[in-house]
Amino acid sequence: MPRPAAPIALVTDYGLQDPYVGVMKGAILSVHPAAVIVDLCHGIPAQDVAAGRRVLASSAPYFPEGTVFVGVVDPGVGTARAALAVESRGRIFIGPDNGLLDLPSPDRIVRLEDPRWFRPTVSRTFHGRDLFGPVAAHVAKGLDLDRLGTRQKDLVRLQIRGTTVRRGGLEGRVVSIDRFGNLITDLDAADVPDPPRVRLGRWTIRGWTPTYGSAKPGTLIAVAGSTGHLEISVTLGDARRRTGARIGDTVRVAKDTA
Amino acid sequence: MPRPAAPIALVTDYGLQDPYVGVMKGAILSVHPAAVIVDLCHGIPAQDVAAGRRVLASSAPYFPEGTVFVGVVDPGVGTARAALAVESRGRIFIGPDNGLLDLPSPDRIVRLEDPRWFRPTVSRTFHGRDLFGPVAAHVAKGLDLDRLGTRQKDLVRLQIRGTTVRRGGLEGRVVSIDRFGNLITDLDAADVPDPPRVRLGRWTIRGWTPTYGSAKPGTLIAVAGSTGHLEISVTLGDARRRTGARIGDTVRVAKDTA
Amino acid sequence: MPRPAAPIALVTDYGLQDPYVGVMKGAILSVHPAAVIVDLCHGIPAQDVAAGRRVLASSAPYFPEGTVFVGVVDPGVGTARAALAVESRGRIFIGPDNGLLDLPSPDRIVRLEDPRWFRPTVSRTFHGRDLFGPVAAHVAKGLDLDRLGTRQKDLVRLQIRGTTVRRGGLEGRVVSIDRFGNLITDLDAADVPDPPRVRLGRWTIRGWTPTYGSAKPGTLIAVAGSTGHLEISVTLGDARRRTGARIGDTVRVAKDTA
Repeated sequence: MPRPAAPIALVTDYGLQDPYVGVMKGAILSVHPAAVIVDLCHGIPAQDVAAGRRVLASSAPYFPEGTVFVGVVDPGVGTARAALAVESRGRIFIGPDNGLLDLPSPDRIVRLEDPRWFRPTVSRTFHGRDLFGPVAAHVAKGLDLDRLGTRQKDLVRLQIRGTTVRRGGLEGRVVSIDRFGNLITDLDAADVPDPPRVRLGRWTIRGWTPTYGSAKPGTLIAVAGSTGHLEISVTLGDARRRTGARIGDTVRVAKDTA
Repeated sequence: MPRPAAPIALVTDYGLQDPYVGVMKGAILSVHPAAVIVDLCHGIPAQDVAAGRRVLASSAPYFPEGTVFVGVVDPGVGTARAALAVESRGRIFIGPDNGLLDLPSPDRIVRLEDPRWFRPTVSRTFHGRDLFGPVAAHVAKGLDLDRLGTRQKDLVRLQIRGTTVRRGGLEGRVVSIDRFGNLITDLDAADVPDPPRVRLGRWTIRGWTPTYGSAKPGTLIAVAGSTGHLEISVTLGDARRRTGARIGDTVRVAKDTA
Repeated sequence: MPRPAAPIALVTDYGLQDPYVGVMKGAILSVHPAAVIVDLCHGIPAQDVAAGRRVLASSAPYFPEGTVFVGVVDPGVGTARAALAVESRGRIFIGPDNGLLDLPSPDRIVRLEDPRWFRPTVSRTFHGRDLFGPVAAHVAKGLDLDRLGTRQKDLVRLQIRGTTVRRGGLEGRVVSIDRFGNLITDLDAADVPDPPRVRLGRWTIRGWTPTYGSAKPGTLIAVAGSTGHLEISVTLGDARRRTGARIGDTVRVAKDTA
């Protein structure tokens, strides 16, 4: 039975300055005029496949089952890399096979092979418009994934430098910094010893603070953020400016025994 | 009778770089798959509650009656501050009770208390996703405000530093500067003496100019802007660059008697 | 017969920092609550009519027939410049008559004259909200263009400094630079001699590269981009940073005879 009105959520590194996202939406509407298209995020740093994968994986649970995600972070567009549709936890993900779709529990992995679901002419530089967008439109209209091409067993895995266990603690990294200057780490808050002692460069934070606003303005705090990861923040302030931290900086946590 | 297809308009300080807005939309669609969601403005300066309130108040009249606005400028997210739904002039506003919803003629003020309308798990850092978005989705589907919680009589008022009367004139401020470099003041154009003499720092402007383009290119002009406030502009140019003005700068107007 | 569910695609220089785009959408929904509104591009450089026209012309073919485009790059808003609806290749374009709508094969050109289709009050500074948006909403609902006003034969043409033929080659310009640092030229890839020798400042590129990713990382390459024009790129890099090029820089191509 076709899924009725599955939304199409877009994650790209196209930004919003240029017309790329808009043109991709035109191509989607050309196939599926009633499509509900959601801009999930177009601010992925250019060609940063790992950041795109992180946004897809952490955001998907908040969308309805059946949502079709289009992921386009694709430095190899037009080369031999494959294009895929992946079913994971009741959602569908369409994009290049370059690690972007390395999602938990892939229940089905199908290669995009049948050109019937593409634009009649496929450029070698803009597969969001010519391939991923149209395929997502067909899938959102109810097309079964198996009609897109042949199944494959595996996909390109992303080399994720995970968090590591160190003498009595954990070591992770700052993986993104948001508009508010919150430093978002790859340390799962559930794995962090409680109460924690958090070290970032020359800064030390002791204990969790329950919300951004529950410490004195200007305090550097550790918060369990909305995706379940440790965040370093400043109450009513900006932790990036305060600490000078950058993406990739090491963050160490241990049990605060003092 | 439920309102059919009320749009949901979003005003936040989330920006568009991060996936916060997109994830909030996912949470809305999870409740109300047919929701019509409009990005009204996500460029509110971080944690600037007064700027958020100004955008809500000045934009709402241009949306259909019944529109549900979600306002999220919320430095106190997860603290004891209340969350509200406010009915004002035929529109509904959902957000934190921190001054953001200090709107004209609030006909109904209801606390968001019943967790049935929230996400099953409410984080302490992302109420746009877990609380305001889902509640707005239920209201846009037709839920009566009184089912959200108990009414209250008042809400947090914003300390707005109004315009002041000075010897034969008015004093106000630059409250925002748009992409074109137009300096938008809090001076109601209807209150400005006609013809006006406008003073900003060392600059003086005499008389109104009817449109941005009706003076010689490069002229510094005073215009009655689209929200009914005095704006200082440069024809085919940028008044911010020309004057070096900043948000908060004083603007004085008097009758031009020369 | 009214066009059912024609999408409305917006191209403006409003940016997304300010609420202008959102308020324009409110005005559209006030006329046409079921409108499907697409942000095609709001990143047109402020008051750059030629850039707006280029985005409209190059993007329209990727949208469904019947799509109503609203173009607002309008430094003369509120002055005597006319406002138009133009039918071109099965799509409708609404905007100021300042060159923005100088599109191929205009089949119908109608002046926006009948105020019945405008907001009841039309400001002199925000025609996107008060005039173009509402008119587009009526047209998307099925209103025939001829009910908007009287036809005219011609519209303001844009002085486009075209590419020029030079001894055995062509000369064009960099007309835009995208988020990835790709330098997009006005040279039609189909007109470029094959194999090409491309000159930009002190840089020379020899031959076409089929995709961004098919050369060694860091290579400066010439690609036939997604709009059919010559682009200068760097594989896994940024051609703007590499070359220091700016919009307007001259690009020369000739047949590579070596």
